[in-house]
Amino acid sequence: MNDIRRTIKWEDNKVVMIDQRKLPHKLEMLTCTSHYEVIEAIKNMAIRGAPALGVAAAFGMALAARNIKPKNKADFLAKLKEAKDELSNSRPTAINLFWALDEIWNEVANSQETIDSLREIILDKANLLAEQDIKTNYLIGENGVSLFNDGDTILTHCNTGSLATVSYGTALGVIRSVYKKKKNIRVYVNETRPVLQGARLTAWELKDDKIPFTLICDSTAGFLMYQKKINKVVVGADRIAVNGDVVNKIGSYSISVLAKTHNIPFFVAAPLSTIDFAIASGIDIPIEQRDPREVTFIMNKKIAPDHIEVYNPAFDIIPHENITAIITEHGVLVPPYEKTLKSFLSK
Amino acid sequence: MNDIRRTIKWEDNKVVMIDQRKLPHKLEMLTCTSHYEVIEAIKNMAIRGAPALGVAAAFGMALAARNIKPKNKADFLAKLKEAKDELSNSRPTAINLFWALDEIWNEVANSQETIDSLREIILDKANLLAEQDIKTNYLIGENGVSLFNDGDTILTHCNTGSLATVSYGTALGVIRSVYKKKKNIRVYVNETRPVLQGARLTAWELKDDKIPFTLICDSTAGFLMYQKKINKVVVGADRIAVNGDVVNKIGSYSISVLAKTHNIPFFVAAPLSTIDFAIASGIDIPIEQRDPREVTFIMNKKIAPDHIEVYNPAFDIIPHENITAIITEHGVLVPPYEKTLKSFLSK
Repeated sequence: MNDIRRTIKWEDNKVVMIDQRKLPHKLEMLTCTSHYEVIEAIKNMAIRGAPALGVAAAFGMALAARNIKPKNKADFLAKLKEAKDELSNSRPTAINLFWALDEIWNEVANSQETIDSLREIILDKANLLAEQDIKTNYLIGENGVSLFNDGDTILTHCNTGSLATVSYGTALGVIRSVYKKKKNIRVYVNETRPVLQGARLTAWELKDDKIPFTLICDSTAGFLMYQKKINKVVVGADRIAVNGDVVNKIGSYSISVLAKTHNIPFFVAAPLSTIDFAIASGIDIPIEQRDPREVTFIMNKKIAPDHIEVYNPAFDIIPHENITAIITEHGVLVPPYEKTLKSFLSK
Repeated sequence: MNDIRRTIKWEDNKVVMIDQRKLPHKLEMLTCTSHYEVIEAIKNMAIRGAPALGVAAAFGMALAARNIKPKNKADFLAKLKEAKDELSNSRPTAINLFWALDEIWNEVANSQETIDSLREIILDKANLLAEQDIKTNYLIGENGVSLFNDGDTILTHCNTGSLATVSYGTALGVIRSVYKKKKNIRVYVNETRPVLQGARLTAWELKDDKIPFTLICDSTAGFLMYQKKINKVVVGADRIAVNGDVVNKIGSYSISVLAKTHNIPFFVAAPLSTIDFAIASGIDIPIEQRDPREVTFIMNKKIAPDHIEVYNPAFDIIPHENITAIITEHGVLVPPYEKTLKSFLSK
């Protein structure tokens, strides 16, 4: 178990992250020296995964704070706010990104500290969010263990591992924790078109951890359920509405329908920072539409005719009725989610 | 409408076929001079699609008949039987292949004709099967039209067009016929991993015919149904059991479950030669397992780590309960399929 692998960190006044576009072929680091470079890395998916995006945005703020050449403190805050807005616009769906930016902003907005102190405060907070993310993931993992049994065959989608977080992972963190308890499990990994996070990233992590797994095309999962070869599903989340609807990687909706049809428990694993208490149901969560070339090209190889229409939403909606439980760092939530989620507002 | 496009034909004592591995980038012909080359073309999917495989096998027999250097007629028949067995072993699931081989064999097995006559008889029969396939597809198309309405948004999977047949197509033939009636339709095309017949072949055919379509990843179809953007599904078939269960391209099962959940009519279009009257239900139909490299490589680009386990069935089973109707050249069959299918045994 390689627990020291870390997706993103602050080093020598720079943000250093694994360039996930190069995996599984090359483990290469990408160094960002400005928040603009962080935005670019988020947009082109050098870094992705809701919790990792939150920490990347926080470190982006730390870079911006260092790079701003302010006339005075008001100017510093104005320029920092500008950087926050730019980082906010990098990707629209994962709420962790906005949550982390707000966490940073709350530290400085009304602070009496000097500019130099604020620069340190922001960096300290970003580092804290990164450390907290790892701890949160271990807790999610621990909390999820009781839902799984020896011999389980678990379907997962996209990448929710170390690479989607600072380290360890959410849904894949649960799988890691289950495996640690020496339970004789097998993971079925959806390749997760179009960006292939399952084939490229999840397969790479599971292979590294020596957890038994089988890679499949996304459309094979249903047939495995038909054959009773999958008995649990666990996925991550990019945003959770108050009613328990979950927005997650495109394909999650189909899996949830198939799981329900086959009476297979469907679990979501996510930190509480993924909950959007301002959104009542999944239909109101913005779904990012991405470049058609993600569908028509694979690894720079064209796979379709030129000049055709493509529909490429990055996410879809898992209705709360299809979710057996949501595994968080504060415990396992069960329906009615409206009630269980709102209980955290007071905590 | 390019009705003269033809996937396979006999020309100058050779079998000439479109090399479907090269599409959509290049329209290149592949010439086979022996049944061994036909077998190779079937195995490596230069030609694919249940009806096309049947005709390819028939032309393979014509090539074998020409190439055999027999000592006498018994020797000719023995060697021809060997070629038939070899062609039979090329791919296991699509029954049209075995059906066409039997159609050829029935012409010669007990014939009193000379070897040279038999060579002509076999070629004539292969050409007849090819011509019949085109006529059958037009009839399937015509029979399907009444099931569709102006404004329909139709999901299809894999390639069931000209390229999957001699010409015109089965499910895509129905779509062609519906479009010809000037109905304002849109087709959603599943890319159809792993071999991408949707992205490479169906998109190419629809673009050529100027039928409006949108290419999607396979896992996006469910989300389109959730959004009520798909209101009909039509797919082909590789083999149909007597109870109406259909074996078709991997992913078909999932689509059928999603369609049922969303109350979307799910149609299968196939010639009667796709029915296996010897098989009671889908579970008894052999499902081909193909090379894991179809999943781990796309267009020769590696997309996953080395040395991992992959599950790559080429087909899955659509339970008859999920099928609204089966469109054949003899009309539209509706449940109970056991009864409607058996009625053709007497025809």
